[in-house]
Formats: sequence, C-alpha cells, structure tokens
Amino acid sequence: MDRPWGLVFIWVLSPLWISLFSGSHLVLGKAELTWTRRAAAEAEAVAAISCSGHGMAFVDGVRDNGRPVCECNNCYSGPDCSQFRPNCSADATSGDPLFLQPYWRRHAEGSAVVISGWHRMSYDADGRPYMTLELERHIRLLHKLVGNAAAEGKQIVFGAGSTQLLNAALHALAPDNSSSPSSVVATVPYYPAYQTQTEYWRSKVFEWKGATAEWLNSTEASTKDFIEFVTSPNNPDGRWQAPALAGSAVIHDRAYYWPHYSAIKSPADDDLMLFTLSKITGHAGSRFGWALIKDVKVYNKILQYIDTDTLGISRETQLRALKVLKQTISQIKKSEDMFRFGYSQIRNRWIKLNAIVSSSDRFSLQKLSPEYCNYFRTTRDPSPAYAWVKCERKADEDCSSAIRAGGIIPRAGTLYGADSRYVRLSLIRSQDDFDQLLTRMKALTAQ
Amino acid sequence: MDRPWGLVFIWVLSPLWISLFSGSHLVLGKAELTWTRRAAAEAEAVAAISCSGHGMAFVDGVRDNGRPVCECNNCYSGPDCSQFRPNCSADATSGDPLFLQPYWRRHAEGSAVVISGWHRMSYDADGRPYMTLELERHIRLLHKLVGNAAAEGKQIVFGAGSTQLLNAALHALAPDNSSSPSSVVATVPYYPAYQTQTEYWRSKVFEWKGATAEWLNSTEASTKDFIEFVTSPNNPDGRWQAPALAGSAVIHDRAYYWPHYSAIKSPADDDLMLFTLSKITGHAGSRFGWALIKDVKVYNKILQYIDTDTLGISRETQLRALKVLKQTISQIKKSEDMFRFGYSQIRNRWIKLNAIVSSSDRFSLQKLSPEYCNYFRTTRDPSPAYAWVKCERKADEDCSSAIRAGGIIPRAGTLYGADSRYVRLSLIRSQDDFDQLLTRMKALTAQ
Repeated sequence: MDRPWGLVFIWVLSPLWISLFSGSHLVLGKAELTWTRRAAAEAEAVAAISCSGHGMAFVDGVRDNGRPVCECNNCYSGPDCSQFRPNCSADATSGDPLFLQPYWRRHAEGSAVVISGWHRMSYDADGRPYMTLELERHIRLLHKLVGNAAAEGKQIVFGAGSTQLLNAALHALAPDNSSSPSSVVATVPYYPAYQTQTEYWRSKVFEWKGATAEWLNSTEASTKDFIEFVTSPNNPDGRWQAPALAGSAVIHDRAYYWPHYSAIKSPADDDLMLFTLSKITGHAGSRFGWALIKDVKVYNKILQYIDTDTLGISRETQLRALKVLKQTISQIKKSEDMFRFGYSQIRNRWIKLNAIVSSSDRFSLQKLSPEYCNYFRTTRDPSPAYAWVKCERKADEDCSSAIRAGGIIPRAGTLYGADSRYVRLSLIRSQDDFDQLLTRMKALTAQ
Repeated sequence: MDRPWGLVFIWVLSPLWISLFSGSHLVLGKAELTWTRRAAAEAEAVAAISCSGHGMAFVDGVRDNGRPVCECNNCYSGPDCSQFRPNCSADATSGDPLFLQPYWRRHAEGSAVVISGWHRMSYDADGRPYMTLELERHIRLLHKLVGNAAAEGKQIVFGAGSTQLLNAALHALAPDNSSSPSSVVATVPYYPAYQTQTEYWRSKVFEWKGATAEWLNSTEASTKDFIEFVTSPNNPDGRWQAPALAGSAVIHDRAYYWPHYSAIKSPADDDLMLFTLSKITGHAGSRFGWALIKDVKVYNKILQYIDTDTLGISRETQLRALKVLKQTISQIKKSEDMFRFGYSQIRNRWIKLNAIVSSSDRFSLQKLSPEYCNYFRTTRDPSPAYAWVKCERKADEDCSSAIRAGGIIPRAGTLYGADSRYVRLSLIRSQDDFDQLLTRMKALTAQ
C-alpha cells in the first residue's frame, strides 16, 4: 500500500490522535462514528433500562419482546425488580464483590471498551503467547502506586482468576515425579478451595494433609516437602498470617491485600504471590488474576500449567482488565479513588454489623483493630471482606443451622476447617444483600 | 422507585427500542452518544492505523508516542510493517485461524461490542453460575442451521477453548478412585495435546497408553476402562475417524466439523462432543468452546472441572462470542456466509499447494476427495485445515529437518505419533504466512 508520507505524518499528528492518546480526558468533538455506532447505541440503551435499583439488564441478557430483561437481585422479582419477596433468605455466601458496582456505573465513560470483530484473534499477542505487554505494565504500575507488593525483578503470569493460579502454583511447586509427593496444608480457618482443589486432582505428586497445626512441632527437615497456602489478610477472618511451618514452599494468596480491605504496610516481597481482579476492581465475572514470581523455574512451570490447561487466557478479558485498571490508576489518591470508595463502603457495613452483634451476647465477631495504612497515610478502621461469626449460645453448636433458621444463608465454619460454632458472612456483596443481612441479623440478635 | 406506568409503556415501545431490538440492521439515527463515545472513537482511530496490510494495531497494544504500534505479521517489520525480511522462515506451525480475519474486518459493524464497566461483574449470570442463556441458545441455533450436530436433548458446558474442555472431559470420564485407572489412547496420527495433557496431570485415575493400534485385537471387556480421543475430521490429516476400540469411553473432538473444512453429512449425535470458537469464527484468542453432553453425570463432572479449575469462564468472552455467532448466524446461506468465505479461502490454498507438490515427487499430500455437503447442498472440493506432508525421498527420513532447511517451520509428524517422514503444515494462518509457505515450497520441490 503506497501512501504519500507527508499526509501520513499530518494524519498521525492530527488533533484526533492528540486528544485520544495524550492521556487527557478530552472526548472527540463530534467526529462521525461509523462501525462502532450501533454497538455503542445498544449499550447505552440497555444501560438506560430501569430495574428499580434492585437489578440490572445486560446486553447479552435473555430477551423479552426483543429487549433484555432485568436480572433481579436476591429477594426481588417482577419485570422491573420492584417486588420484594419478604420471606426470602438473605444471601451472605460467596465473596461476589458487587459492592464496587456503583463505582463503575459512576465511571461509565472511563471504563467502557469497544471490542472490534478482529481484535486479537490470534493465539499470540504482542508477538508472544497470550499476555499483552500493556496490561503487564499497568499491573506493575498499580502495585507501585498502591505499595502493596514489590513487582520489580519478578515475573508475571496471567491466569483465569486466582482459582486457576492456585491450581497452577500447586502443580508448579509439586515435584516432577511421584516418589515423594508434596503434603499440602493451610492454617485453620482457611479458604475451602485449597482443600477441594488439592483433592480434586487425585494427583500422584501432591496430597491434601489438612491443618498446619498438626505439624507445628515438626523439624524443618521433615516439612521440606510441604506446600503451604498462606492468605494474608486471611479469608475468612481478615487476620494477618505468616507461614506456620519452617521449610515449606509457600503460595502467598494476596487477594485481600488492597486498601479497601486492609491497611497497606510494606510492599509484600514473597517468592510467589497471587492477586485477583475480582477483589481489586470487583470484576469477578472476568476471571482474571496474576502471579508475581521470583524464581524462573517456578515461572516456567506456572506458564506451562496455563498453557496445558487453557492455552492462555481470554483477550477480551485482558482488554477490559486493562481499561478498568487504567481507570483505577488514574484516580489513585484523588477524589474518585476506587480504593477509598471501597473502603468507605465496607467500613460502614462493618460498623453497622458490629453495632447489631454487640447489642446482645448471642454472636461475636472477629476482633480487628485500627491500623496505620501507608496508602491512606493515616490510621484506618477495620473493613474486612467477611465477618467471621461465632455463635456463643450453648444451644447454637451448629451455628450454620441457627443462622439459616434466621433467614440468612452463611458459609459454614466447618468448610474452613473450623468449629461448627463459626460461620462466614460476606460483606462485599450488593447493597441489597447487605441490607437484607442486617435486617435478619437484627431480628436474630433480638431473639 | 415509582414511575407512571403509561410513560414506561411509551418508552418501552419507543422507536429507539424498536430499531435496536427488532433484529433489523437499523442504526439509531443520530441519537447523541454519551459515555460510550470516547471508547468508540478510540476503537475507530486504532482501526484506521495502517500497517501496510502486513500487521495490525490493537487498542491494547504497546504505545509509541501515545499511539498503539503496528504488530507485524511474520517476516515483516518496521513501524508500518512494510519491510519484508527475505531470509525469514515461513511459519506453518499452529492452527492460528487468521484466515478469517478479513471476514471480520468486512463485518465491522455487525461484530463490534461495547462492554460497560459494570457488565456482568458477578460470579453468576442469568441467575445461574457463569453461563449466559442467550449464548447457549445461539449455540443450539447454530448447530441446527449448520446441521453438524444434534444439540437437542443434550446439555451444554462452556469452557476456555477445547483445550480446557479436553482436560475436563478426561477428568470427567476417569473413575472416581484409583483402583483401576483409565487407559487413554488415540489413533495415529493424533493431535499432540491428547498425550501432553494426559501426561501433564500425573493423575492416579488415568494414564496415557499411546496408539489404539496396540489394542485393536483386544476384547471389548479388556478395553472397557479405556478413554479414546477421536477427532473427526482428523487433525492433522482431515480424514473421517471413528472410535477404534469397542467398549471405550469416547471424547469426540469435533473442532473441524464445520463447512469451511469439511463436508457436512448428518448431524453428529455422540455422547460427548467438543467444539471451539477458534476453528469456527477464527477467534482463537478468546479461548471459548463448548461441550455437548448426553449423560447428566458426565455433564455434572465437566461442570465440576470448570468450577474447580477456573470458577467458570470470562463474561467478556461470552458477550463477544455471542456477537460473532449472531453475525455468523445472520449470514448463513446468504451472500456473506462466513462458512462459504472460509471454505473458498482454504480450498484455494489447498489447490495451490497441491499444484506445487504434484510438480515433483519430493513430497506427497494426504488424498482427499470431493464429497457431497448438506450445508452447501452440492459436492464440495477438499479444504483441510492442515496439509499432512510426506517426504518421499530416501534421504529425507527426517522430514521436519528437510522442510526446515528449506525455510519452513512445520510441526514434526513424530509429535502426532507418526513416522518422522511426515510433517503438518497449517493452511489456516494469515495470507502472509500462506504466501511465504507457498514460495518456500515451490523452491523446495524444485530442488
């Protein structure tokens, strides 16, 4: 294709490029859109569908008379989600991070992306397999600006959420042959997937061995073939955790080490750390996470897992992750800081739940104290992602049943390797879920 | 939220909705776009970047002076990919399906999607875990219109490409306990991932046993714990395949049973069939595929794999897959039929390669004949995704080295369990890759 170079030069430097790529927030004046207009108009029309604040319509939703229906929040129904079902149980189960949804509605322009039909169809991207360099660069920048992890000098691997990366890390740290399979452990209470994932694989090279407590008095030599999952801050109870066993290989799950949930102290600098977009920007449905890895051999093995398991991860996801991380970065320590928004949401929820729980002696919550946070440059109140609730009454030995009887669906403490007197309640779901949880807890504590 | 119902009624039936959701191709007149405009303008600006027809710029590409750089096709370089590197080897390795990229550039409007910042942030979709109903509905419709698979009465599970679904199927068909692990086999020449995946897991419940040929004379009883991978049409040689062993559980890989590669005979109706978007619309980077499953127990086990491995798959991918499948469906058996476009591309490539190969006796290709195709309602020429090349000269026992010496990077036949006299050459990559392959083959056959 021949083209007069003078014209190309003028075109490249045209105001269009300058306004688009200067990093400023200028919008193109009224330049005529062509092939993107229909998709843009559809997205705006769907966004304008009212679901009474208790649900949402999506571009790819089921259609009724050609129009996507409202998908209602728990306990709401009807065509516009306006009907409340009073006998419905509050859902406090998964860590579905919808508390951040309002933030993204507020930042619609900065977080929208258009995906063309020919966008990154190839197995490769930027001339290497599957991982775009721009996204990697922004992840490193995010860690630097937040101060929660030392990414310099470490390799990054993208995965389909921490879920895939936990599996990848497990396979990467296990030995190559089956003569001495690794023992996989975690400290109670632990995230249940550590156990279910490890057991699922029926592997010759690793096996689930339960709680670290049983090996606390072992020598370093006897736990050298151990793989330990360490979550800090911990899921479910928000406490700081360190490896319990000397000599074990450690998978550091850092899903909650972000300013909305936790004080940021020094940048974490462990050999193998996992992060997930779900708990940063709230995009759980995207299935995106990354590992920071010091050792090149471990890096190659984690890459091998992603390659063998799924041949890389979605490019649409990578494009959108880039967009929401760019928006996040652009507001760091500014008036529309996403972390500050998230922190204030959960802090308020935690205060409200505490007020109710402390009004009687039926339940107790984990004790968390204000801590100095390097990110906010001040002492911050606790804002854990989950309440770790203990049923204090003698009769409520099966805490999960007691809570369920009161119209709340919790996660049973036994799933976390803990006593049946404990349950986990999620505090990061939608406002509707939290409001229903609060109403039910008020009634339960008064009983 | 109260709202006068009359107004809602008028709004719902407004021309905006009718034009958007009537399935017609009307574009909104000149309605003012708001929050989508910036992303739309950026996508159009990036699409307008010229890479001389030998590369492409992407919205999430590495930036130079604020502008995404051209990512050049193999053997091209320079800021606009205009410089050809003459000593560069032709890449004929992976089945990177870029032959369909021109189709999507031609159908830009029908295949673009806008993803809002709040699109499907949740772990759930349509009130169920991870799989959108609209996409499932369109997949069923596609099979019905193409006539390649009987989807009625079968369950569908989405996965991250066939890659994840092959792993899921393997784990689902293996026994629950390790007392009698399954033997996993395939017929030579077979897709190499069957072996590498099976071996990768170091599983207690299945193990790779190689070629079916070794068990052809076994009794049905003795192969009842076998899992057999069957690819039909086959990768690498495009031949029809059926299970070789009586009594084995079969994973039917139907990646290539689409009209661009193969005659469509009757709808395939096997118990467990896998399909992948990569080989249908060419969107390999999306990592999207699905399984059609007859048995509910197998369905639940495959779901369990996806859940344990990655907690579902990307919503951005699902939205885009829906869009490109809708575009595909809208043109079926019409002038812009994607399958016809793809067929004519590969058929032409196959004819050209055949002409060169048959000009000497150095190489031979697999023999394929015209067959009647129910989709095109006529006899069609062969158009295989890959050439399965045999080096006929005595000295070329190591065919891969001989081909490499001629400046072509092939896949060695030994990877497929076959003799070293064979290599696979991919025919579905970009036009540049194919043109370079042809030039090199011409020189090689003349030697």
